Amino acid sequence: MKANEDLAGENTKTFKENKILSVNLMSSPGAGKTTILEETIKKLNAEIKMAVIEGDLMTSKDAERIHAQGAPVVQVNTEGGCHLDANMVSKALQEFDLEALDVVFIENVGNLVCPANFAMGEDKKVAVLSVPEGDDKPLKYPVMFKEVDVCVLNKIDFLPYSNFNMESFRRDVKSLNPQIKIIEMSASQGTGLDEWCDWIRGEVQWKKEQK
Amino acid sequence: MKANEDLAGENTKTFKENKILSVNLMSSPGAGKTTILEETIKKLNAEIKMAVIEGDLMTSKDAERIHAQGAPVVQVNTEGGCHLDANMVSKALQEFDLEALDVVFIENVGNLVCPANFAMGEDKKVAVLSVPEGDDKPLKYPVMFKEVDVCVLNKIDFLPYSNFNMESFRRDVKSLNPQIKIIEMSASQGTGLDEWCDWIRGEVQWKKEQK
Repeated sequence: MKANEDLAGENTKTFKENKILSVNLMSSPGAGKTTILEETIKKLNAEIKMAVIEGDLMTSKDAERIHAQGAPVVQVNTEGGCHLDANMVSKALQEFDLEALDVVFIENVGNLVCPANFAMGEDKKVAVLSVPEGDDKPLKYPVMFKEVDVCVLNKIDFLPYSNFNMESFRRDVKSLNPQIKIIEMSASQGTGLDEWCDWIRGEVQWKKEQK
Repeated sequence: MKANEDLAGENTKTFKENKILSVNLMSSPGAGKTTILEETIKKLNAEIKMAVIEGDLMTSKDAERIHAQGAPVVQVNTEGGCHLDANMVSKALQEFDLEALDVVFIENVGNLVCPANFAMGEDKKVAVLSVPEGDDKPLKYPVMFKEVDVCVLNKIDFLPYSNFNMESFRRDVKSLNPQIKIIEMSASQGTGLDEWCDWIRGEVQWKKEQK
C-alpha cells in the first residue's frame, strides 16, 4: 500500500511536468467504458491529444477498439488482478510520447469494488454506471461513488425498458457525494457526449494552467 | 488462503452432514442475482426448503427482498471486502436451522473477478451474466467462467435492443469450459426459470442421495 502511494506520487509528478490531464475510468464489467472512450476520441481527436491505458485481466480486445480510433494505447493485462495499480500505470506511461499528449485515460479493470481503493496518481476519477445495473448500486457500492469526481450514468436508452428510478439514483449518489457531477449518457446513441466532452475540455484547460 | 481452504472443508462437511445443496451465485453488480433468487423462492418454496446468505459491501437491501419472499436469510456485510469467504459462510450457517433445509444459496458480492478465487465449501458455482454487459465478457473474465458449473445468461429480454451475439457468447463460454451448462433467462419476465428450477431439483435430489 505504501509503495503504491509512493509510485502514485511519482505518476502525479509525471502528469504535472507534462501538463497531462489523467482520468481514471472505473465501472462494473460491461457498463460501457470502452465505448465512451471510442466516442470521446472520435469527437475530440482533432483538438485534444489523447492516449489510453487499457486494463484487463486478459485479452487485448479493448485496446484493439481504441487503436482502431487512432489513439495511442497500451494494454496492461493484470493476469487475474482485480484492479490497476500505480506501478502498472508508471510502466505504461513509458510507452507514450508524453510531450505530445494532453490527456491520458486509464480504463481500469471492470470491477465496482477494488479499483476504488488504489491510487494511481491520476487527476480525476470517473465512475460509469449503466441503467441496466439498477438504481440501487450507489448505496451498495458506496466507496466507489464517494471517491469519484464524475458519475456517468450510461445506457440511458435502456430507461424505457427498465425500472430504473432516476430520482432515487440521483438522491443516493448526492447523499454519498454532494460535490459529484452526474452526466446522463448513451454513448452508443451519442446522448450526453457533448456534456462529457465539455467537461474534458474544461479539465484539460485547468491542467494547462496549473503551475 | 490455507486457513480459508480449511474452513471451506468444514463448510463442505456441514453441508454433507445435513444433506444440504449449497450454490454460490456470482456476477457483476446488477446482473440479477437477487431477482433470480426471489423468483426461485416463489417457484420452489412449496417443495424445497431454501435459505439465502446475502453478501454485500454495505446495506441490507437484498436481504430484505429475500425476506419478503418468506425464506430464511442472513445478511453478511463485508465492510468493503470484494468477496465472501469460508469464514463468513461458516458464521452465517450458524444462524439457520440446518436440519430443516434442502438448499442454501450464497449470493456473493457483485464482482466478476475476486469471488472466483475463494472457496467457500459450496457444491455448485453459478455465474450470472446479463445481456447488457456484452458477449465479450467470458474471454475478458475467464477465471470466473472456467470455474462454474452453470452460466445463467440473464436479461435476454434486452436482446432486441442490444448487439449481443449469442453464437459468439456460447462459443467463447464453451471454449473456456466445455462442461458448462448455459441457461438463457429473463428472471423478471419468467423466461428460463423452469429450466433453472429443474436444474435445482436435480441437484437437490443428487445431494440427498450422496452417502
